[in-house]
Amino acid sequence: MQPGFNIVKAGHIELLVTDLREGKKFYVDTLGFVVTESDKTHIYLRGLEDRHHHCLTLTQSGVPGVGHFAFRVANEADLKAIEKLVKSKGGFTKWVEAGDEKGQGRALLVQDQFGFPVEFYSKMASEEWMLQKFQNYRGAKVMRLDHFNIMLPDAASAYEWYVKSLGFGCTEVTETEGRKPVLWAAWLRRKHTCHDIALTTGKGPRVHHAGFTVSDRASIMDSADLLASSGYLESMERGPGRHGVSNAFFLYLRDPDGNRIELYTGDYISADPDWVPIRWKLNDPQRQTFWGAPTPASWFNEAMMVRSPRSGEFVGLTLPKIKDRPDYLLSAR
Amino acid sequence: MQPGFNIVKAGHIELLVTDLREGKKFYVDTLGFVVTESDKTHIYLRGLEDRHHHCLTLTQSGVPGVGHFAFRVANEADLKAIEKLVKSKGGFTKWVEAGDEKGQGRALLVQDQFGFPVEFYSKMASEEWMLQKFQNYRGAKVMRLDHFNIMLPDAASAYEWYVKSLGFGCTEVTETEGRKPVLWAAWLRRKHTCHDIALTTGKGPRVHHAGFTVSDRASIMDSADLLASSGYLESMERGPGRHGVSNAFFLYLRDPDGNRIELYTGDYISADPDWVPIRWKLNDPQRQTFWGAPTPASWFNEAMMVRSPRSGEFVGLTLPKIKDRPDYLLSAR
Amino acid sequence: MQPGFNIVKAGHIELLVTDLREGKKFYVDTLGFVVTESDKTHIYLRGLEDRHHHCLTLTQSGVPGVGHFAFRVANEADLKAIEKLVKSKGGFTKWVEAGDEKGQGRALLVQDQFGFPVEFYSKMASEEWMLQKFQNYRGAKVMRLDHFNIMLPDAASAYEWYVKSLGFGCTEVTETEGRKPVLWAAWLRRKHTCHDIALTTGKGPRVHHAGFTVSDRASIMDSADLLASSGYLESMERGPGRHGVSNAFFLYLRDPDGNRIELYTGDYISADPDWVPIRWKLNDPQRQTFWGAPTPASWFNEAMMVRSPRSGEFVGLTLPKIKDRPDYLLSAR
Amino acid sequence: MQPGFNIVKAGHIELLVTDLREGKKFYVDTLGFVVTESDKTHIYLRGLEDRHHHCLTLTQSGVPGVGHFAFRVANEADLKAIEKLVKSKGGFTKWVEAGDEKGQGRALLVQDQFGFPVEFYSKMASEEWMLQKFQNYRGAKVMRLDHFNIMLPDAASAYEWYVKSLGFGCTEVTETEGRKPVLWAAWLRRKHTCHDIALTTGKGPRVHHAGFTVSDRASIMDSADLLASSGYLESMERGPGRHGVSNAFFLYLRDPDGNRIELYTGDYISADPDWVPIRWKLNDPQRQTFWGAPTPASWFNEAMMVRSPRSGEFVGLTLPKIKDRPDYLLSAR
Repeated sequence: MQPGFNIVKAGHIELLVTDLREGKKFYVDTLGFVVTESDKTHIYLRGLEDRHHHCLTLTQSGVPGVGHFAFRVANEADLKAIEKLVKSKGGFTKWVEAGDEKGQGRALLVQDQFGFPVEFYSKMASEEWMLQKFQNYRGAKVMRLDHFNIMLPDAASAYEWYVKSLGFGCTEVTETEGRKPVLWAAWLRRKHTCHDIALTTGKGPRVHHAGFTVSDRASIMDSADLLASSGYLESMERGPGRHGVSNAFFLYLRDPDGNRIELYTGDYISADPDWVPIRWKLNDPQRQTFWGAPTPASWFNEAMMVRSPRSGEFVGLTLPKIKDRPDYLLSAR
Repeated sequence: MQPGFNIVKAGHIELLVTDLREGKKFYVDTLGFVVTESDKTHIYLRGLEDRHHHCLTLTQSGVPGVGHFAFRVANEADLKAIEKLVKSKGGFTKWVEAGDEKGQGRALLVQDQFGFPVEFYSKMASEEWMLQKFQNYRGAKVMRLDHFNIMLPDAASAYEWYVKSLGFGCTEVTETEGRKPVLWAAWLRRKHTCHDIALTTGKGPRVHHAGFTVSDRASIMDSADLLASSGYLESMERGPGRHGVSNAFFLYLRDPDGNRIELYTGDYISADPDWVPIRWKLNDPQRQTFWGAPTPASWFNEAMMVRSPRSGEFVGLTLPKIKDRPDYLLSAR
Repeated sequence: MQPGFNIVKAGHIELLVTDLREGKKFYVDTLGFVVTESDKTHIYLRGLEDRHHHCLTLTQSGVPGVGHFAFRVANEADLKAIEKLVKSKGGFTKWVEAGDEKGQGRALLVQDQFGFPVEFYSKMASEEWMLQKFQNYRGAKVMRLDHFNIMLPDAASAYEWYVKSLGFGCTEVTETEGRKPVLWAAWLRRKHTCHDIALTTGKGPRVHHAGFTVSDRASIMDSADLLASSGYLESMERGPGRHGVSNAFFLYLRDPDGNRIELYTGDYISADPDWVPIRWKLNDPQRQTFWGAPTPASWFNEAMMVRSPRSGEFVGLTLPKIKDRPDYLLSAR
Repeated sequence: MQPGFNIVKAGHIELLVTDLREGKKFYVDTLGFVVTESDKTHIYLRGLEDRHHHCLTLTQSGVPGVGHFAFRVANEADLKAIEKLVKSKGGFTKWVEAGDEKGQGRALLVQDQFGFPVEFYSKMASEEWMLQKFQNYRGAKVMRLDHFNIMLPDAASAYEWYVKSLGFGCTEVTETEGRKPVLWAAWLRRKHTCHDIALTTGKGPRVHHAGFTVSDRASIMDSADLLASSGYLESMERGPGRHGVSNAFFLYLRDPDGNRIELYTGDYISADPDWVPIRWKLNDPQRQTFWGAPTPASWFNEAMMVRSPRSGEFVGLTLPKIKDRPDYLLSAR
């Protein structure tokens, strides 16, 4: 592609949890993620459709949040090109040697110019495909990672970075109202789905959620039933419902540490090279939930802090210069 | 059965609408009820599973509300016995001659001691079964009427009437908290489902909603999508979701006049003669919605006025002596 | 009701299995029936919707087949009336004392005039309701027993017995073609569903299958996936598909001993007292499977032998005097 | 990509029908394809997810079959490179001017070295997105074209062509049994799904079917119900069921002319650059249908003839040198 390298897809995310046993109870025993490997401080998980080592890592930590999120690239040579590009924008980079992250080849860990800890990698160990081992299906029957949703003060700059520099396509956008609308959020993809990453205006840099695909709406309904009868009533923050943006069916969950994930299904194939972004207005009541149900304030107030690859500390937050939510929720800030 | 007559099931309901064309647009064109017959001031509707003339009548009226709701009885002779019983309790009765309500045989129209307009009938004209005419399935794919939910100040007295005098079985109850719990709501059945009628404490006599069965959860999701894209976004008051009580999947709708119906699916068979009622506490957050989503205040504030068979006027309302909603909503009264 | 007693519903069935561990692997570990109790020679199972001790008993036996099938009656006094009636037709009766069958009160075990081992009982121990314990849902997520399907040479006589003497209602029938059609099969109910028992023409007395209800079509699809990946590929004899008769969605299974059960969902409510039976012709290609797929010959050739309550031996078989299958399968006899 | 051009996805197919009104009745009135445009001899159809002019063209013809199938390329310049490549292999090429096929820009029409009529195009007119116009959902609720399945005597050569020359990735293969297994079929993709084209061994060149995506399994069940009650019982050739290959849920249909399409849902995302093909053996009973149901002989015997872009005649057929079906069906040839 144009950039001289080829980002393939959203690859995996590292969530920081304060109690690995509670994390296992939620993600494995209840939601049914497949355990590939674990040690004292990590559990490496994959979905039923995954053929590689992990799409979700739980890492024991004193404070919850996100260690890094990662994109898979087509070739190891792509990493060098990305290193150069990130540096040219003032980002921090460091190499992660093969095996330092279990199952993964040599990787480039970045703190990008917006403060996000982003990893790029090419090689990951192959693992058994569970897709047709229906006897092992459990819980939410999670198939795979689909996307990241990140929150930052200046979505327009991040849009430039992802689209112009990293070669993402844009499938949908949200704009503010008025005569001079500005970009408020964007859904960007490398693989042929609605998105690999969404950029949202808000206090940041924070990761809003990671979206995991399930097979169908029934799996999401079943997950709600299961969580409600497993002591995770409070984990269900929003949904089930139909999104306006992406047209997908969703259920947002908070893990025992408050980290947020989405169970997600039913978007579309976006392979067309001349895709014209779908445009939404921030205040459109059907934008977030097509059925009109208002989004809870917590959805705008809370997101996951990110840990800096440079300092090891959580990255400080900046407020956006434009409103960070629809008007009907401004009073709930 | 014990009472000397045999009420079979919830049979039909007459909803008063202020614009029959708007009613048709909502119930027929959008939700897909089957039109059996219509005239200038009525539309007689049935579901895809129905084999008789109507389960829902829309009647042109200056004011919305409920004309009557009706139970089917096994034999015409049952009507006499019910007449006697209603009179013994001080209720008003009158005979509706065969054909006065289209498609219906001779019927007994009652204003019961609580003020509700209730009809009892034995005969109704047979109509074509649409269950396997899938080419005619439309909209919400409504199968049949399932139940009425009525609101009145003294649910305990109505419970006595329905269970002791009319021979209903009780499948579930809601009680208030505290050391001396009182009956707050009850789900009562004649046919072998969760209920034919539910009694709820509130300002009354009013009809809270009529519940119509659809085949599965997918039909309810599809209905939400359909309503949201058909200009009926505001019609969706609550849901989709899973009930605690009844375990059914639901979506509550308000028609263009504010009359309330429920799309409902997935309760259980209650044929067992020794059924022990399931007991819920009023404040249990999973009672109304198993997934914990709070019920909107409108659900407690608003219900359908009923028209008196005696006077033709709407029946005046009385407040209950106990709280009419869970504590978390008391401030919304 | 007319007969002077009140049969409530199909209650439970005893299947004879040659290896209880294999039975447990199939019914419990794979299909997800709930174990209420077991001993060396029996496993007592119930569905997620059941509130009583068992709807399916597996009994260790040298030969597979059916020990008995059972109807629940409303009152213990009903058993006496049934005893008298059965004897009047030349049937064999004996009393089963409370607890002789685990969890069950005093019961009447019958060998009816057609040779079938039928039990009638009124009391059964209450058990925990699993319906909203979604964390325990497994496998096929079986809800409850729905019906028995029995095969015998003279369906018309059995129809007389069940409808006239035992008070069943008839929802659907199958008749032979031609100018003098004869009854070939009938679907009969006490509870308000399509059926509690179906009578089919064939070599008998044999039990063709027991039908168990699941919640929706998705559960049936999921069951097929699960069985296909659990080493039970050969267990799936017919389906998934839609029935013409009953309109239900189905999957027929053979357990490791060849005993046949049906996973079944989506029939209708049949409470109406004036229900006119739906009529089908034996050769109608949509009768058995609405989508037209032909039924395999094994479905007509094979059924479960029944053990005589009188002799303890399996009951000998008699051929019907009319054809036992649609014309397109006559050559496969 | 490597080839110097970029094929994006399976784009559209032209089916030849002998009666355009019958074609409209099947594809539009029953299956619910969206009509973009039509004239006396063509109907241009798209799915609910499509944002371009057509994915299916019905063309009036004296004989049924396939006019051409088409791949979308990223840039118009790609067409030149493909022209050169096709010619180098001895294929025939001709240019189709913009608008000669309605809604389409300049295109390259090819008869490839295997005899197939394949079109490559870059531009197609944008059309209204129906994805969230649920009020217009009808019939099978077809979303989009997914793939072509073609049959030819030498699948291995076609594999070389598509993978090495045209840059397709291979997701799954079927091989013959024995010590020297040979490639019998391959599933190849450009977009990130299981496939854009499948190559199958058989008498050819013929097109076996075109696969169209629906949203979920419920849509496929509903389609079977609908077809069965709309006079298209005979149209359902195979399914519904789960595929082994692709893991998708399917229903195969024959249109009134015998042209074959598949309703298809639920495969996986194949974006990984190091995808290792899933390998199946031809005789594996779960390969075609995961639930083990044997495929009907017609599925191997019948396929759609293709019309030569060079001569306008249907292309003559050649038999394969290896068996064209699993052993269990060899006797049905």
